[in-house]
Amino acid sequence: MPSFYPDIHEELRPFFNPRSIAVIGASRHPSSPGYIIFQNLIENAKRGILKAKVYGVNIKGGEILGHRLFKSIKDVPSSVEHVVIAIPAKFVPSVMEECGEVRVKVATIISGGFSEIGNVELEKEVLRIAKKYRIRIIGPNGLGIYDAYSGVDTIFIPTYKDTDEGRKLNMPRPKPGYITFLSQSGALGDAVLDYMWGEDIGISKFVSWGNKIDVDESDLLLYLMDDETTRVVILYIEALKDNGRKLIEIGTEFSRKKPIVILKGGITEAGARATYSHTASLAGNIKIYETAFKAMGATLASNIIEVVDMAKALAYQPPAQGRNIGIVTNGGGPGIVVADLAERVGLRVPELSKETLQLLKEHVKNGLIPSIATFSNPIDITGTGTDESYTAATEAVLEDSRIDLVIVLAFHHPPTISKDMPVKLIKVIRDYKKPVLIMDMGSTDMSAWVRKKFEDAGIPAYSLPYRVVAGARALVEYGEWLRKKGILAKYIENWHPVILN
Amino acid sequence: MPSFYPDIHEELRPFFNPRSIAVIGASRHPSSPGYIIFQNLIENAKRGILKAKVYGVNIKGGEILGHRLFKSIKDVPSSVEHVVIAIPAKFVPSVMEECGEVRVKVATIISGGFSEIGNVELEKEVLRIAKKYRIRIIGPNGLGIYDAYSGVDTIFIPTYKDTDEGRKLNMPRPKPGYITFLSQSGALGDAVLDYMWGEDIGISKFVSWGNKIDVDESDLLLYLMDDETTRVVILYIEALKDNGRKLIEIGTEFSRKKPIVILKGGITEAGARATYSHTASLAGNIKIYETAFKAMGATLASNIIEVVDMAKALAYQPPAQGRNIGIVTNGGGPGIVVADLAERVGLRVPELSKETLQLLKEHVKNGLIPSIATFSNPIDITGTGTDESYTAATEAVLEDSRIDLVIVLAFHHPPTISKDMPVKLIKVIRDYKKPVLIMDMGSTDMSAWVRKKFEDAGIPAYSLPYRVVAGARALVEYGEWLRKKGILAKYIENWHPVILN
Repeated sequence: MPSFYPDIHEELRPFFNPRSIAVIGASRHPSSPGYIIFQNLIENAKRGILKAKVYGVNIKGGEILGHRLFKSIKDVPSSVEHVVIAIPAKFVPSVMEECGEVRVKVATIISGGFSEIGNVELEKEVLRIAKKYRIRIIGPNGLGIYDAYSGVDTIFIPTYKDTDEGRKLNMPRPKPGYITFLSQSGALGDAVLDYMWGEDIGISKFVSWGNKIDVDESDLLLYLMDDETTRVVILYIEALKDNGRKLIEIGTEFSRKKPIVILKGGITEAGARATYSHTASLAGNIKIYETAFKAMGATLASNIIEVVDMAKALAYQPPAQGRNIGIVTNGGGPGIVVADLAERVGLRVPELSKETLQLLKEHVKNGLIPSIATFSNPIDITGTGTDESYTAATEAVLEDSRIDLVIVLAFHHPPTISKDMPVKLIKVIRDYKKPVLIMDMGSTDMSAWVRKKFEDAGIPAYSLPYRVVAGARALVEYGEWLRKKGILAKYIENWHPVILN
Repeated sequence: MPSFYPDIHEELRPFFNPRSIAVIGASRHPSSPGYIIFQNLIENAKRGILKAKVYGVNIKGGEILGHRLFKSIKDVPSSVEHVVIAIPAKFVPSVMEECGEVRVKVATIISGGFSEIGNVELEKEVLRIAKKYRIRIIGPNGLGIYDAYSGVDTIFIPTYKDTDEGRKLNMPRPKPGYITFLSQSGALGDAVLDYMWGEDIGISKFVSWGNKIDVDESDLLLYLMDDETTRVVILYIEALKDNGRKLIEIGTEFSRKKPIVILKGGITEAGARATYSHTASLAGNIKIYETAFKAMGATLASNIIEVVDMAKALAYQPPAQGRNIGIVTNGGGPGIVVADLAERVGLRVPELSKETLQLLKEHVKNGLIPSIATFSNPIDITGTGTDESYTAATEAVLEDSRIDLVIVLAFHHPPTISKDMPVKLIKVIRDYKKPVLIMDMGSTDMSAWVRKKFEDAGIPAYSLPYRVVAGARALVEYGEWLRKKGILAKYIENWHPVILN
């Protein structure tokens, strides 16, 4: 950790693991942010996830959800480390003063109505007070924080909504996992969380910093460098005000330890124009951004589906030692589509070594692989291939020293493929530190079941060619960057699989 | 319809709407193709979907599923229009002879073991017999046909599979709809069907032609030109042997009436190498293909998710009259991401006209749109916007003559958005012949419910920025092609929305 930020870990710790937390603006209206956040926290405390003491503050006092509300943070009987502020913007400065007086350490400011609508002076005033009392701020005008492990949850989107066809889940929270997501946009953030939930992808932490007047991406990266449940960081960035150099410096340091995936908003004229009015910042020259992000070892995603697919690969598989992809399939067409996509994004799908071809031919002789199989890479065991054809072909390709990463199109459809195909393949794959990604296209419960089997064993599984190739590209590019830095071999040596239940 | 194919409709009709159909190779083994196909057809006849008489033929005779099996097609007591052949390749010629003798009209040959593994002569023999008796063939070595309306279903993938956690749906069939999918690859075909089922996208017909020794893409396009339930055709093509010129000619004619979306397999060296061994054909020069496909008015998709997303837009919305996209959102970040993606694929996201800006400002004054909203396109009504903000902003953009297509990011998350937002937006959108696409990101039942509301009203809804932009691009490119042909205005004049339940 760079020495110019010696205290960052203890400074930011109360955001994610507070000993006590208070919601200022805990309101009686069930659709109000203050109510929803207070309810989230009370609920998580009840379920034993959140270990902090939770307090509600409302200038009118009263009671909600069976909890007394204090009229001021100064009335709370014990010290409070973390305050969540969800009150009209104009009241924030005086409340911050009170927080300072009772030695609050960090504030997540949910309230909007600051620089994003021109109230620049009000925002400066809040920051001035925070500096005076050394309170760190996330926000204002953001969704704040979700920590799947500690139970801190300031997302003020209602969990359920009622429709004509009954109550529907409106805003889910992903299960605990190893991806941390830092987002300049709140709306993009909650959409991605919803999407991760649906794909059963775990999360460690989510932070939406809104106008970002204090804690920024760099601070968070420094904090996350030693966070055990963060194995990869997703960054959604629209603009870096004057802290670009700091991010590049800290990001480069971070990438030596853990991968970063970046989605940059505002890369075209229209996008940049929108960025300008959104969260009050300028998108700047995209070429400069892209060059800088690449130099710092981050993988650039071009859309939301890609950013999560890449993060999943990077969280669960080691980086690749080169660009050569081996593809095993039981469907000719999908194999071709994946090969095409891979080569289009700059990966290589080379012919296999003579030894591997020899081995595969022996498997045909032994009856392990059907005689109509083809081995030009993709290795197509065809629709008559069995579980054993899959394992034999996959093992052969994993052994081929020409191949740096293996994509197995593990299609469950044919009658010759049994329910045990995933288990058998996992056994083979687990013996290697060569990255493997799975694709089983489809939306049925059978295909979801197949993917889940692999993912429960730490092998990322995708539902579309496009998506598995994005994962492969991320592992290849990260590997190349590590090699340039001269630390790839050591990185892979130290790499260990995720321990899953 | 070009005059050189006067009889195509009646020639191919028995594939999709036979008066009688026989499965040759109806087998007692529940996992065998012959059993599965026979079962599909019997089931569909029982449910009243399939109107044809169904017969089973097995050289050993016997009985399955309570139906007598005939030892030969010649023993079937009445005439048979369509035979599905699922027996070892070497027996196919003699069976075809028998079919010819009893005046069978069409044969779907499922059996593999022909040119794809070097048995070129055997394949030629089959074709020779077919020509002699004027039997049209789909196949061999393909999945055959699925027609969601007529109940013809020769897909031999088991519908269910048993796992440790119970019986799982293995291979679903999408509901009836307006997209027809013609696929050179069977495996890609069933994966796409599975995926369409999961996204609740309807299908009209699916054809997998395998080695394609007789009926080809062009024949099928001619047939589909007047097919009422086909509003768009998806083509997955790996290679065109010597029938490329015919496809371009007929495809151009087809595009004047209905759109085509093409996914081309084998566009890179590795993909082409694999194609060479798959379905025994050469991928050829991709540049030539791409130029030809564009000239014939087809939209080129670069992957499987795109091909379906484009088809959905083209099936349900009119083509766009230009490249200018208007974006309405309540989340700044997602709006920026969509604007970026749109400009990246060559669409334009221009500033709105003065009149529209004036109108939007009035809506702010009236309190319909929040004062913190921004109008630079994306029009961001912000997370505090209401249902009424959405309808007011969407209507304003639809009225703007600068804008050719509108993307509404209809996010359900904020507390200010009610369950009636879709219904209210649909009312506004329906009054225009300007194409509109919806995006609501997320995987919860709430977001699926929102998307379904729109789709049930004929307005395509997408779950990701990338996907909605693909849909928009297809509508823009098809519109441009029609304009070049001088028929865009007439096309839009004649265009009518899908009638949905």
